[in-house]
Amino acid sequence: MARYDFASDNTAGAAPEALAAFIEANHGYAASYGADAVTARAADLIRGLLDADAEVRFVASGTAANAICLAALCRPFEAVLAHGHAHVTIDETGAPSFFGHGLGMVPLPGVSGRIDGDALATALDQADSGHVQSPAALSLTNATEYGAVYGVKALGALIAPAKTKGLSIHLDGARLFNAAAAGFDLVSIKPLGIDLLVIGGTKAGMTPTEAVVILDKALARRFDARLKQSGQLPSKSRFYAAPFVGMLQDGAVLRHAAHANAMAARLAERMPFPLAHPVETSGVFVQMDEPAFQRLFAAGWRVQRFLDGSVRFMCSWATTPESVDELTEALKNVR
Amino acid sequence: MARYDFASDNTAGAAPEALAAFIEANHGYAASYGADAVTARAADLIRGLLDADAEVRFVASGTAANAICLAALCRPFEAVLAHGHAHVTIDETGAPSFFGHGLGMVPLPGVSGRIDGDALATALDQADSGHVQSPAALSLTNATEYGAVYGVKALGALIAPAKTKGLSIHLDGARLFNAAAAGFDLVSIKPLGIDLLVIGGTKAGMTPTEAVVILDKALARRFDARLKQSGQLPSKSRFYAAPFVGMLQDGAVLRHAAHANAMAARLAERMPFPLAHPVETSGVFVQMDEPAFQRLFAAGWRVQRFLDGSVRFMCSWATTPESVDELTEALKNVR
Amino acid sequence: MARYDFASDNTAGAAPEALAAFIEANHGYAASYGADAVTARAADLIRGLLDADAEVRFVASGTAANAICLAALCRPFEAVLAHGHAHVTIDETGAPSFFGHGLGMVPLPGVSGRIDGDALATALDQADSGHVQSPAALSLTNATEYGAVYGVKALGALIAPAKTKGLSIHLDGARLFNAAAAGFDLVSIKPLGIDLLVIGGTKAGMTPTEAVVILDKALARRFDARLKQSGQLPSKSRFYAAPFVGMLQDGAVLRHAAHANAMAARLAERMPFPLAHPVETSGVFVQMDEPAFQRLFAAGWRVQRFLDGSVRFMCSWATTPESVDELTEALKNVR
Amino acid sequence: MARYDFASDNTAGAAPEALAAFIEANHGYAASYGADAVTARAADLIRGLLDADAEVRFVASGTAANAICLAALCRPFEAVLAHGHAHVTIDETGAPSFFGHGLGMVPLPGVSGRIDGDALATALDQADSGHVQSPAALSLTNATEYGAVYGVKALGALIAPAKTKGLSIHLDGARLFNAAAAGFDLVSIKPLGIDLLVIGGTKAGMTPTEAVVILDKALARRFDARLKQSGQLPSKSRFYAAPFVGMLQDGAVLRHAAHANAMAARLAERMPFPLAHPVETSGVFVQMDEPAFQRLFAAGWRVQRFLDGSVRFMCSWATTPESVDELTEALKNVR
Repeated sequence: MARYDFASDNTAGAAPEALAAFIEANHGYAASYGADAVTARAADLIRGLLDADAEVRFVASGTAANAICLAALCRPFEAVLAHGHAHVTIDETGAPSFFGHGLGMVPLPGVSGRIDGDALATALDQADSGHVQSPAALSLTNATEYGAVYGVKALGALIAPAKTKGLSIHLDGARLFNAAAAGFDLVSIKPLGIDLLVIGGTKAGMTPTEAVVILDKALARRFDARLKQSGQLPSKSRFYAAPFVGMLQDGAVLRHAAHANAMAARLAERMPFPLAHPVETSGVFVQMDEPAFQRLFAAGWRVQRFLDGSVRFMCSWATTPESVDELTEALKNVR
Repeated sequence: MARYDFASDNTAGAAPEALAAFIEANHGYAASYGADAVTARAADLIRGLLDADAEVRFVASGTAANAICLAALCRPFEAVLAHGHAHVTIDETGAPSFFGHGLGMVPLPGVSGRIDGDALATALDQADSGHVQSPAALSLTNATEYGAVYGVKALGALIAPAKTKGLSIHLDGARLFNAAAAGFDLVSIKPLGIDLLVIGGTKAGMTPTEAVVILDKALARRFDARLKQSGQLPSKSRFYAAPFVGMLQDGAVLRHAAHANAMAARLAERMPFPLAHPVETSGVFVQMDEPAFQRLFAAGWRVQRFLDGSVRFMCSWATTPESVDELTEALKNVR
Repeated sequence: MARYDFASDNTAGAAPEALAAFIEANHGYAASYGADAVTARAADLIRGLLDADAEVRFVASGTAANAICLAALCRPFEAVLAHGHAHVTIDETGAPSFFGHGLGMVPLPGVSGRIDGDALATALDQADSGHVQSPAALSLTNATEYGAVYGVKALGALIAPAKTKGLSIHLDGARLFNAAAAGFDLVSIKPLGIDLLVIGGTKAGMTPTEAVVILDKALARRFDARLKQSGQLPSKSRFYAAPFVGMLQDGAVLRHAAHANAMAARLAERMPFPLAHPVETSGVFVQMDEPAFQRLFAAGWRVQRFLDGSVRFMCSWATTPESVDELTEALKNVR
Repeated sequence: MARYDFASDNTAGAAPEALAAFIEANHGYAASYGADAVTARAADLIRGLLDADAEVRFVASGTAANAICLAALCRPFEAVLAHGHAHVTIDETGAPSFFGHGLGMVPLPGVSGRIDGDALATALDQADSGHVQSPAALSLTNATEYGAVYGVKALGALIAPAKTKGLSIHLDGARLFNAAAAGFDLVSIKPLGIDLLVIGGTKAGMTPTEAVVILDKALARRFDARLKQSGQLPSKSRFYAAPFVGMLQDGAVLRHAAHANAMAARLAERMPFPLAHPVETSGVFVQMDEPAFQRLFAAGWRVQRFLDGSVRFMCSWATTPESVDELTEALKNVR
């Protein structure tokens, strides 16, 4: 039987707190398109979490949320600087360019998904030209695609030169809570100068939902029209807001993220294959040759090989120590 | 206190059968992006309902579902023929043109949202030209924006000449179940030659979900890539499929639709304002001057004025006879 | 034999001054992409003509020039207000929406192609909403599609309320010189608050060329990249600039425009069919039933029926009194 | 004084035969939008040149011509395989993605701009997935960006496996005549299975013009509407067709191309810097360090450094042996 426990952090269902709030939100009538009380409450909780004034919208898709943000920051003849292995760069079937009408993605290198500062500097130093798409935005991901965490200082060191050159800043927070559980201070986001932030609910253990946080409120004008046209202004908005209420109101989301991180640490500790990246949050990336990978597949375990050649094991709120141990046994057998 | 009971069929929560299936689907791990058992089951149920072979996908947004279908049928320099008051024409903030990269919408007239056959014939008779967007697709809505139902023969009379001219056919079924409860035979859809169908879950009393039914399977090639790029390939797909399972497996969705239609009939019967359209499904459209409308608003009732000047009262699975009677009283008071 | 003399103002070749400058520009090497001396000279002449500081670019296509300007002023989820019969609205195969990624065109009524002030006011008064494309730009055409001329005061009366609401202003000057020859003061354009202006060279008697005049210089940033991506940054730019040099350096363009207007006046005077619009510039629009139109066609004359039902006879720099008289005879015969 | 002789093959004016035909085409009235006799004649000449039935259109921009072709072959969620240094990949400010609404460009490696067969095979072997843009078209350039020529057999070896996988084929012929003058058989193009071909007029010594050759005539349906919407259906079409008439009717274009190639050979022979690529057509690419490059610039010579680090000297129909010798002297001085 195929096992998806470690295939991704989107293979588990929703955590109890998220589901309970979802069910709770189902009662009675509510205004549609975000004008309801649950949506207002969830937005308040996010503002509280970030200690920041911001407009907040709840949408169904992380792909769309990030692509829409990049389209808001970058015109078609401009480009987004992002890590070459970032989700927005290589894993969205061209969504940023679709929503952004041909905007360019400039891939930058860097260890474990963190953008290299020198490479960024070089990209920023390129003179404007009519013949290339010059950068208008910097897209960051925290935690990164490889589970690494940017500290506040590291983020600041990338954001400052970009801002100096007039770029806007986007943060893909698909796994923001895992970064927070690993020490990243969410209150730093606004002072860091991030303009648009996407907070992933789905991978954090919610039913499908993502929060778009408009920190630069000048960008909020007609944002609902932007979302509507892009198919991301849900009529029954409360169902996208409710899981955030359930997970934020008593801090469950951070407990779940800490658990996922702890499970990854446990797996890393027992891992019979060499680690490809330090384990800082919920993913464990290892070096595994193709025959071993195929044996693991034959044993029923579904996991993914990544762009850097490593194989990823992903933990989530739902991961149990027992399943980590089962996996560890399986890994020993296929080595 | 503001009352949204009749504001739309998206102001109620989900029906019990939908919610139960949603909760049921939450258990355990599942493959993501549509490769799970719940999604397979929901697709089977839809094929059964239509008695048709088809590819089925579950997405979050009806706006996006319809716009993506039109983009699949129509190139940017071509046009979609649709009723001038259809949702795709006037109520999606230009989504078809956004997803379809500038495709044109040609508005056609017709009583109660049904396209007039002569107007369609005229539109189809226009010679191709390099200077206008010539039609490539016909978009139909059943039930229509004004609650009217196309019978099989009426649909066929519009589809046949369009097919003869080489157009593809899209059916917006945001309220397909209301049409079915009013007598429209769902099994006719495939033989009628409809290429792409969107079945609305949201307005039918589900948590947010829409089904895209690819009846012309030649269109299915790389459809997942199309959905992914458009932000409509949900990772936790089961949550979009589950409500269809809950509502279809024992026919609940048609019972709920019949109830909504019955509540509209009850309201129509007691309505102290003149009807603007015959009441065939779940919406009641009336002629109401602005002062009366404002008094109704002041009394707390939230409803909408439509493009044809009429005011809409929308029933849903959740509408109770008591609320119809309360509304009837309120309407008498503001007349 | 088919005669195209009055079919359009794009059926004649280029006027001698334009062609001479084109040939003159052919000598020797020149920097490409607009960095050459001919381009600089043409831009200076246009700034002089308008008595305005502005960035100027020369492009090949009026369709593209106008569409690119609208895309620069309006985001995909916003709309352009324009006359319902304006070229950008109905005669560009959806180019504004293609270049503008789905931007909406809101058609406004008005006599002889001039936008009605009350209709504009109504359009401007609509409250912003997430569900419709709210206006971000006003597009004007002078002379209008039906040959009417806006005076400075009339333009100002439309521009002022639009500016008050935050809209940007685009002027399609495909026949700007005909308007100028009829009295419109080109120096008024900048003070009127027009942000982007397209000056038509092609219809004014040049080899193919259009000037994009960026009056709001904040819009000039990365405009070359915008043009390049849109296929409108010609490598051999001098060939698009030269005709403007030839036609502007001694005022030939206005003499030619005055001639075209005079020929239209002559035709109007002798016209055996009733005029559909006052003849203010170079076009003569008449009421002609279909049988007469077909007889005229059989007699070899190629002209167009317009959206308002009238038939257009277009004069140009090349129109001769003799051809006007020949046409007049033909018209008498088909009446 | 800045010298642009070798900066590009777009810095010279038009060859006498092209200009003469342009002037000749200026006489009298002509139908617009491609329905004129000059356009028909030019299309016939191109069909004759290729010995192939095909639809032919004349447009203003090579950037647009190529991007429009790719958009015709590839949907937004699909990708084009092309050499990583091809013009369409890196030198068009994202035009393919703009015209193609987010289509992806997959860069392939290969010596001197020729695509490596193994790399192509690998790209073609990738399984379809909803998460990446799978290839739908192969774009080739002959002569390549680095002046190399594909022979018929080499082209066939790339086209065959791509066709087998269902891809369509685009050929960017910006310098097709240089390839032909170096031995490439133009009559092979149709049998090779190329679907869309762009023949560059501009770089071949014409006034601005490019020919789009629709070899797969199924693609011709509504192509004029596609061109019009994209701003590439010129009203005064004759001015884009005429240079082709002048240059093709007696074979001048191939004589001019052979001359350009010969001038490049002469320069290569005398070149004091090491060649970076074999000189097969009109471009000479050399290894030159930055100080030498700057000295050359200071001496007035404008040339470009390319993506592979080499510096390009471009010959054209207008290059004289004397200017080659002058340049040679200058190069000796800066070495």
